[in-house]
Amino acid sequence: MIHQKILIEVPGKHYPVYIGQGCYTQPEVLLPYLASKQVLIVTQASIAQHYLSPLQALLSGFQCDVLYLPEGEQYKNIEQWQRILDQLFAEQHDRHTTLIALGGGVVGDITGFAAACYLRGVNYLHLPTTLIAQVDSAIGGKTAVNHTQGKNIIGAFHQPRCVIADLDFLATLPMREYVAGLAEVVKYGLIHDADFFAWLANHIDDLLARDTASLLHAISTSATIKAKFVAEDEKENDQRRLLNFGHTFAHALEVANDYQILHGEAVTAGMEWATRLSMQMGWLAENQGETVLALLRKLKQHHSTIKTPSAEMFIQHMRHDKKIQRGQVHFVLLKSIGQAVVTGEITEDQLKNLLK
Amino acid sequence: MIHQKILIEVPGKHYPVYIGQGCYTQPEVLLPYLASKQVLIVTQASIAQHYLSPLQALLSGFQCDVLYLPEGEQYKNIEQWQRILDQLFAEQHDRHTTLIALGGGVVGDITGFAAACYLRGVNYLHLPTTLIAQVDSAIGGKTAVNHTQGKNIIGAFHQPRCVIADLDFLATLPMREYVAGLAEVVKYGLIHDADFFAWLANHIDDLLARDTASLLHAISTSATIKAKFVAEDEKENDQRRLLNFGHTFAHALEVANDYQILHGEAVTAGMEWATRLSMQMGWLAENQGETVLALLRKLKQHHSTIKTPSAEMFIQHMRHDKKIQRGQVHFVLLKSIGQAVVTGEITEDQLKNLLK
Repeated sequence: MIHQKILIEVPGKHYPVYIGQGCYTQPEVLLPYLASKQVLIVTQASIAQHYLSPLQALLSGFQCDVLYLPEGEQYKNIEQWQRILDQLFAEQHDRHTTLIALGGGVVGDITGFAAACYLRGVNYLHLPTTLIAQVDSAIGGKTAVNHTQGKNIIGAFHQPRCVIADLDFLATLPMREYVAGLAEVVKYGLIHDADFFAWLANHIDDLLARDTASLLHAISTSATIKAKFVAEDEKENDQRRLLNFGHTFAHALEVANDYQILHGEAVTAGMEWATRLSMQMGWLAENQGETVLALLRKLKQHHSTIKTPSAEMFIQHMRHDKKIQRGQVHFVLLKSIGQAVVTGEITEDQLKNLLK
Repeated sequence: MIHQKILIEVPGKHYPVYIGQGCYTQPEVLLPYLASKQVLIVTQASIAQHYLSPLQALLSGFQCDVLYLPEGEQYKNIEQWQRILDQLFAEQHDRHTTLIALGGGVVGDITGFAAACYLRGVNYLHLPTTLIAQVDSAIGGKTAVNHTQGKNIIGAFHQPRCVIADLDFLATLPMREYVAGLAEVVKYGLIHDADFFAWLANHIDDLLARDTASLLHAISTSATIKAKFVAEDEKENDQRRLLNFGHTFAHALEVANDYQILHGEAVTAGMEWATRLSMQMGWLAENQGETVLALLRKLKQHHSTIKTPSAEMFIQHMRHDKKIQRGQVHFVLLKSIGQAVVTGEITEDQLKNLLK
């Protein structure tokens, strides 16, 4: 078993992220983070069929309840969150219980939010089974469910006791979802680490082939960068905003596609636009910009078809965001590979020029 | 305007509790705690008829939305909590908005929990309008709603930005509710402050007559003691458990009376039993015990009729609690007036002996 351990530090707390192969079934990795003999595993059928039994075997001496969430972002809602709370109460889980989220971002977000609220907060662990969850949503303590009309409107900051990002989980991940996860990996290089970006550009074929050693490096570097941003700024403020590189555009794309595209697909396209805008502003050197766009094109080969909104529709979307954010839409742009800045300087004309 | 200001300190945060007469409509008291021009006031019709207009006048330049909760503990539920979230979203409240809870414990708990979860946490202020909320539930950051089968099962720790405990609010409080609030005031003297208890015993008639100066002293001393316990221990652990003096018995009483009695009434009766048990154990001197019982009798004169459970039923209830708390029921008992201890030593025989 190879694994790396990264420590996430947030004000007043810290917890480890284990990254490795075959580590989630190792007693010495998981068991120290359970405070009692009570556990509720929250998962989905498609994941459970591969990874639930080994976990149940590890917890054979426990009261180990299991709850299945239906598959799909549309079920990241209050009703499913209440199902978790109802089951915890019905099975008499006490304040020392532990929730284990075995799944991707949807499972992690909803389970984390249930853990945040049951008896005013109980422990949870996240075993992220998608690449995007391993490098992004599992780190930082953001938990939430969607409102009928808005994503992540209802939630809490609640840190897990540990995260176990096992490479084994990625074996069954469909190619499209896997590549969508790589979008966030590339993002970390772009906003914070030029060397990592260079390494990614050199190893993109190994990564697309899911080479173990390359994956271990990519995930642990990504998690380390995310951890650094989270440590400086648990709640969403200045520094943490840089993590939204490509996301302002991505959000408009998700809306234009009725959320029928993957988040990582939208982020890849969004990073393309943000890169072009950085070049158009004269902030990012031409040759660096082309290097970025070339790597993003490699990812896009594996994407589903994305409907691009018109410039008009995009400006509309910006105006709506502007209203919500009280007067200013912030873009994250690149000064160079590895260095991002937040700016409110972009005009509608500049956007129109970009989008035509 | 006379008022006192007490600072509540919890790990990483602090906020003030203002206690005074006519202070909630003073711009210099309330306005500094609003982060933007958006406000949602959550209240109930019976309270709004007396106290809403002055608050709205103070906030005349604001987007000031109002939501009415139905009256009664049975509405401290997920549905009403969701109504608050829906309205916040519908009226486009952003992350800088402030929720103002204008009401007693039910309004405060549910509003605080909505503030804890909207956009992963927004500001809220509590203007507690009952005595029990002013001295107890408004201080400490516990927010919650009830599960269909259990009280405060779903919630969060979320501290308000400030609490304004205005004596004016108590003018319209029915006598029965007012006296129920005094139960918690007496509790603080018993568990922590012999001098305060002595002062209470001397001024109980003034307090029952709602004398302003006496009330100001009683509320500010109570809030200070609660603040001290909360500072040492934000979440529920050792020290904070002393606040449960009388509450193990009180909970059994509330169940036996289908929650048709007031919490403070149950606590008064519970403190009577806890005092008798302290005497029976030989921990509390006979003369001190009699002094305590005499004061509690003064409060009980204003109570509604309470159904006392049989010793058998009470033991059953204890056994159920025992299961939930993993093997041991803790009682808070008195060593002397002003000094409480948590004990797990009490046997069923000792309880039967007490209750017969």
